[in-house]
Amino acid sequence: MAEEMTEEEVGNVVYVGNKPVMNYVLAVVTQMNGGAEVVSLKARGRAISRAVDVAEIVRNRFMPNVEIEDINISTEEIVGNDGTTTNVSAIEIRLKNPNPK
Amino acid sequence: MAEEMTEEEVGNVVYVGNKPVMNYVLAVVTQMNGGAEVVSLKARGRAISRAVDVAEIVRNRFMPNVEIEDINISTEEIVGNDGTTTNVSAIEIRLKNPNPK
Repeated sequence: MAEEMTEEEVGNVVYVGNKPVMNYVLAVVTQMNGGAEVVSLKARGRAISRAVDVAEIVRNRFMPNVEIEDINISTEEIVGNDGTTTNVSAIEIRLKNPNPK
Repeated sequence: MAEEMTEEEVGNVVYVGNKPVMNYVLAVVTQMNGGAEVVSLKARGRAISRAVDVAEIVRNRFMPNVEIEDINISTEEIVGNDGTTTNVSAIEIRLKNPNPK
């Protein structure tokens, strides 16, 4: 996970893809324990349900004080190699730690 | 779709499952055109990403004035036939028509 987050890490964004859900849970918990007040989970397409899983597992099992600050959905255009565009749904779940270190 | 919505129809809830996405889009558009001010999309597990698709398609292609009033995520316990429980993530997307008929 870490290698995917280079500059995004600054803004505390965790991109949720096809890896096991606990990888992303660990990324969120690590960032929060590192002092992040807000961590955004972002996902597209089928990974959207996994992003919801991550948010729920973080809150129910690891950090019960974390709140869901905001959830936004949107549509993104993906341009394929042949120039055609496909629409894909996206979600952003903003998790907030009310007591950051 | 209609046969699944008997009493839920009263509260304007559309349960998103594994059918083609346009079935649910049609259900939402039909309810809104029938005068519903708010329609809730509910989905669990992998169907969560399809519920987001439904909301985005309704807004982008059919009813651009419809707003996303609220999005909530939660965890539901499913009890299997053998009595074991499984946790599954759930989403509720509330769509609002600011100008109902």
